Amino acid sequence: MIRVGTGVDVHAYDPEAPLWLAGLEWPGEPGLSGHSDGDAVCHAIVDALLAAAGLGDIGGLVGIDEAGTAGAASTGFVTQALARLAEHGWRPVNVSAQIVGNRPRFSARRDEAQKLLTALVGAPVSLSATTTDRLGFTGRGEGVAVIATALIEAA
Amino acid sequence: MIRVGTGVDVHAYDPEAPLWLAGLEWPGEPGLSGHSDGDAVCHAIVDALLAAAGLGDIGGLVGIDEAGTAGAASTGFVTQALARLAEHGWRPVNVSAQIVGNRPRFSARRDEAQKLLTALVGAPVSLSATTTDRLGFTGRGEGVAVIATALIEAA
Amino acid sequence: MIRVGTGVDVHAYDPEAPLWLAGLEWPGEPGLSGHSDGDAVCHAIVDALLAAAGLGDIGGLVGIDEAGTAGAASTGFVTQALARLAEHGWRPVNVSAQIVGNRPRFSARRDEAQKLLTALVGAPVSLSATTTDRLGFTGRGEGVAVIATALIEAA
Ligand SMILES: [Zn+2]
Ligand SMILES: [Zn+2]
Ligand SMILES: [Zn+2]
Repeated sequence: MIRVGTGVDVHAYDPEAPLWLAGLEWPGEPGLSGHSDGDAVCHAIVDALLAAAGLGDIGGLVGIDEAGTAGAASTGFVTQALARLAEHGWRPVNVSAQIVGNRPRFSARRDEAQKLLTALVGAPVSLSATTTDRLGFTGRGEGVAVIATALIEAA
Repeated sequence: MIRVGTGVDVHAYDPEAPLWLAGLEWPGEPGLSGHSDGDAVCHAIVDALLAAAGLGDIGGLVGIDEAGTAGAASTGFVTQALARLAEHGWRPVNVSAQIVGNRPRFSARRDEAQKLLTALVGAPVSLSATTTDRLGFTGRGEGVAVIATALIEAA
Repeated sequence: MIRVGTGVDVHAYDPEAPLWLAGLEWPGEPGLSGHSDGDAVCHAIVDALLAAAGLGDIGGLVGIDEAGTAGAASTGFVTQALARLAEHGWRPVNVSAQIVGNRPRFSARRDEAQKLLTALVGAPVSLSATTTDRLGFTGRGEGVAVIATALIEAA
């Protein structure tokens, strides 16, 4: 019993906001706007995990649309998603997420982010990053896209 | 014997056309242009299934490029793809598809669409939707992108 | 022991360069700029394989950023990635990659490209192609995006 799920998330840069990405704060980097703290890596992972289990998407989680969650740590949404999977008898096998965008320069902190999210998810999380050769909204530096794929199995 | 496949499909809005998406008609919503009825969810699922089995893509299906298929129900292309998989000894394990775009507001009819496509595919199909924070062609409301991932196994 | 990985790669067209895509040269077609020979199919496959195994991304491979690799055959990067997987006890199950862009017209040489990459990877590689209905940077003919998903297993 194994299943695959995919999730994409996009946020525009907001230079006034602190950057939270892949569970880490990135001092001095432009932040991401949008719901909660804008952590598009955590959001894409949530969507991939929920999709694999057929349990909807991040819009159904507690607090995601509440004004009070501006600046909420999105790692909490990953934990919520995992709890839903567990309730339905699923556990993650592994998750792969790729950041598409110009900033931040991700590779310097990849290991740190992978360790944090692997511990959080309880299964290997691999993170990578790429740019788009100055093309599209990511290439123009307007925002960040993240694509994640998750494999889960019956617990 | 298990394999993974991925498929992406993009269609521009055509306000003159009826909207068909995820096998459902959406009255009052701007439609999608392009081949057949423009159902980008069905098309991405077809491409993901065929790719998993190494059987080409939607361009190889019967009728996809014929003028007479304008307005064709794209659910028929999903059925064609499944028949090709079966001929080659494959069956779907599950499919995950995410709609990226501003319209329609998908969550209200997610359950209905999931049930329809799960019955059609004969394996769990999970559907989700997201927007792109006003960025890119999806954020400007020019069209819809769908990304699908399929897992299949030897029948 | 099975794992999934995903990889995206984008390159702008460079009409002065020869086109290398999916391990093939495409005479008379506009080339792709960027690191090495710009073969976005090989690069996305490398990222998907490395991500599945949790071994970083193409930026960590030998020679990828060296000036001397301008025009390097990107098939060599696929071979490097497979060697890293083997060192860590992984082998590919299958890879699916989709080209998103207006040029080249891929279907005429799909079989040739699939055979080449399947032999190179030592597991089924399926290739497909789609356009984006004139939307976004791919639809405007500015460049090519490739999305790949890889399944690997313990060797
Ligand atoms: Zn988000
Ligand atoms: Zn289509
Ligand atoms: Zn590249």
